Amino acid sequence: MSWKRTLFQALVMVTVAGVFMLGGCSQQKTEMVKTATIADGEMNPANWGKAYPLEYDSWLKTKEPRAVGKTRYKNDFDAKNSRYDKLSEFPYMPLLFNGWGFGVEYNEPRGHYYMVTDQVDIDQSRTKAGGACLTCKTPFVDKLRKEMGSAYFSAPYDQVRSQIPEEFRELGAACMDCHENKNMGLKLSRWTLTNALKDVGKNPDQLTRQEMRSLVCAQCHVTYVIPKDKEMKSLDVFFPWQGSKEGKISVENIIKVIRSDPAYGEWKQNVTGFKVGYIRHPEYEFYTFNSVHSNAGVACADCHMPYTKVGSAKISDHNVMSPVKNDLKACQQCHTETPEWLSNQVFAIQDRTASVMMRAGYAEAVSAKLFEIAHKAQADGKTLDQGLYDRAKDLYLEALYRVIYIGAENSVGFHNPSEAGRICTDAVSMAQKSEMLLRQALAKAEVDVPADINLELAKYVNNRGGKKLNFRPELEIFDPFGTQEKLTPISTQGR
Amino acid sequence: MSWKRTLFQALVMVTVAGVFMLGGCSQQKTEMVKTATIADGEMNPANWGKAYPLEYDSWLKTKEPRAVGKTRYKNDFDAKNSRYDKLSEFPYMPLLFNGWGFGVEYNEPRGHYYMVTDQVDIDQSRTKAGGACLTCKTPFVDKLRKEMGSAYFSAPYDQVRSQIPEEFRELGAACMDCHENKNMGLKLSRWTLTNALKDVGKNPDQLTRQEMRSLVCAQCHVTYVIPKDKEMKSLDVFFPWQGSKEGKISVENIIKVIRSDPAYGEWKQNVTGFKVGYIRHPEYEFYTFNSVHSNAGVACADCHMPYTKVGSAKISDHNVMSPVKNDLKACQQCHTETPEWLSNQVFAIQDRTASVMMRAGYAEAVSAKLFEIAHKAQADGKTLDQGLYDRAKDLYLEALYRVIYIGAENSVGFHNPSEAGRICTDAVSMAQKSEMLLRQALAKAEVDVPADINLELAKYVNNRGGKKLNFRPELEIFDPFGTQEKLTPISTQGR
Repeated sequence: MSWKRTLFQALVMVTVAGVFMLGGCSQQKTEMVKTATIADGEMNPANWGKAYPLEYDSWLKTKEPRAVGKTRYKNDFDAKNSRYDKLSEFPYMPLLFNGWGFGVEYNEPRGHYYMVTDQVDIDQSRTKAGGACLTCKTPFVDKLRKEMGSAYFSAPYDQVRSQIPEEFRELGAACMDCHENKNMGLKLSRWTLTNALKDVGKNPDQLTRQEMRSLVCAQCHVTYVIPKDKEMKSLDVFFPWQGSKEGKISVENIIKVIRSDPAYGEWKQNVTGFKVGYIRHPEYEFYTFNSVHSNAGVACADCHMPYTKVGSAKISDHNVMSPVKNDLKACQQCHTETPEWLSNQVFAIQDRTASVMMRAGYAEAVSAKLFEIAHKAQADGKTLDQGLYDRAKDLYLEALYRVIYIGAENSVGFHNPSEAGRICTDAVSMAQKSEMLLRQALAKAEVDVPADINLELAKYVNNRGGKKLNFRPELEIFDPFGTQEKLTPISTQGR
Repeated sequence: MSWKRTLFQALVMVTVAGVFMLGGCSQQKTEMVKTATIADGEMNPANWGKAYPLEYDSWLKTKEPRAVGKTRYKNDFDAKNSRYDKLSEFPYMPLLFNGWGFGVEYNEPRGHYYMVTDQVDIDQSRTKAGGACLTCKTPFVDKLRKEMGSAYFSAPYDQVRSQIPEEFRELGAACMDCHENKNMGLKLSRWTLTNALKDVGKNPDQLTRQEMRSLVCAQCHVTYVIPKDKEMKSLDVFFPWQGSKEGKISVENIIKVIRSDPAYGEWKQNVTGFKVGYIRHPEYEFYTFNSVHSNAGVACADCHMPYTKVGSAKISDHNVMSPVKNDLKACQQCHTETPEWLSNQVFAIQDRTASVMMRAGYAEAVSAKLFEIAHKAQADGKTLDQGLYDRAKDLYLEALYRVIYIGAENSVGFHNPSEAGRICTDAVSMAQKSEMLLRQALAKAEVDVPADINLELAKYVNNRGGKKLNFRPELEIFDPFGTQEKLTPISTQGR
């Protein structure tokens, strides 16, 4: 054997070995993307499923309950189909959200399969905005908008939903929301996101596949505004990203947009009487704001729809869920540690976030009750220093949106740990400063206020809505570090 | 060629290729550990350097200035040898530390080479505790303790230092502090740490090499207490780890120990008049408290003393420094990203931590000034509600130690990002709650207090100590997110 042939042979083997070592099991064959014929406008997932049965089957699995006990937070539902009541988990929330659907019934989210079902089942104060609520939920949104025009947004939820063909009235996000029927490529189907991308300086026609693997999710896993006319009729749905840049959609900018126009005030907070906006599940914004995984180019689908084996095929798992509920398999694509090690890391972050989230939530609840006292004093004829009152209100609102933001974001801080700490610190700072300024105004007006404000939680957490929902103490999540008790002792919470 | 021989050849090549691919450049030879003869008790690093010239040379490099501009925080000193004044960087610090050496002169740390030199040069209020201050600084500490007994701790700093042979009086941490002379193995030379390890349930005689690569650093990069007798003479040095477990030395437990005995009160805070303890550079505690890098088994030395090439040899770099100042080379041992990408991640965390650190620091400063007002009112004959006052004081002290902790920890949050957020959120919560309770007590006593407390920063930051040190505004670090201004506007800071 000549030295040349030996060298060549060696190089081939090195290459083969490299592929072997870097690429995992070589016996696993990667299935090619099919280009089956799916009719234009085909809405029925079952028909898409004829061409892509494995993906379809995994999508259907979002119907199944996830094992409870794998995660400390964000349980969805158990085998008995009992839901996790967020207002019992975090009892400061019903106080803050009183006057608004989220203060009546607010459950931890469950699988995609139940999107519309859950919207139909929930206390209907939650769908008061009308057809606008279907914007993320039904693949028929474009059709409805075309047919109904602006009435799509404002007409009653049930009325708009009844325009959907009966067999699809409980169908949530499905194939055509994210995929091209011709070639299964990813696509954006919502005008809300394409508009928002332009607002942050991003061309929606020039997106990489990896960007798309996050952006199809960002069609819904973002916050949005439903602007109202003077009669509080819904006019539109848009994302409050104006003034931000891609990857830098800060909580500050989102709040700035929401506060910039009274038409974005969607509800009246009962305790304070303030008309305010709302922030929903800002996963995309929070995650992409300079987080380590986002900066590393990790897409939503990498963690929530990891490649998985079905028989000899490899598919992107459409049973979308938290990696913690899926035995940390997604994490192990990049991280070699054990599931126990990985979940400990998640919990280390989530425990801290839950702790500071409570600090912020309760601080804001105290401030809200103080506004209630202040407004009562005003109604009784007392005059409060307007300068102090205005500053207190400004800070109160800034804190409120931060408290809503971190509570609505569905990762309990994991998507961006240090950002969670920043948002909660700011929320506490602002909520308590607001309280102090208000105390000052009240003291000047000779209104006596106790050192510990009674939160009267029982009033807000019990007897909620038509279903008369009550506090379920077994669900309450307590501060993992035990610090909250030093600040708002249970005895002062009026439970 | 038989199939057996081919298989064998292939296996060898795969193995070689694997080693090649996993182990980097195969031309680099790893130098064996030498077992040169270094005399027992040899103190002179130059003599150790005869056997280990490369390590010695790299240790000597801690003398050189580090390029300023690579990092946003923790600059040490520039080519002109101008120091970074921490009290100008964070002007809430001189207010809080007034009455204590740290409020007079407090510089960002520089290389190990200057350990003792900097202690000699600094305002001597910083070494008031006496010989105890040398515990981390000189390799002669054991000898001094044996010779002087308990007088080692309490005798004046200069007097104890004069007992060190003249040629070594400015020698800081050196070879024998971390190494066995016989075989260059790692060793612990400080009783403070071996005692503390026992306190957290760890046997100091059964440590792995990887543990040792952090613990030799933990001999000094920890917080400690210098208990005092009734005449405020130093009695000892110990780490406040009692009640904690290894890897779970929480800020809560540290504070609990410090507050458990009045003998641990080392100074009187002038603004409040409270006798309090102090927390120093708790790097080891903060880092090992469930942080991702610590849980991944990364030792201090992995990041701060990475293996480096010198000619054809490979050594552990003894020019100990922040990886950010060293072009992120240490990070690149595990992370394949570019230095720019890596430093962006560090700054993302540090910017957020700096922001929340300010929120905590200024909240505590405001509360401190309110105590000053309260004490003045008491001196003027006003009676304050004792219950409110006591709760306010308790929360104020809890917050104070957290503010000191996060300000003294030398990574600006990087060592444990979500823990930094937690500590600062708690500090703000407690500081502001303390302020509110005190405002309540003052209002009840009919003492009028303005909404914004004038911090009178100019009084504390200027004309400090014998050197008459002044504020250097060019060094001030401002909130990267601009939020602080909403809470303690510059106009109310009395600059």
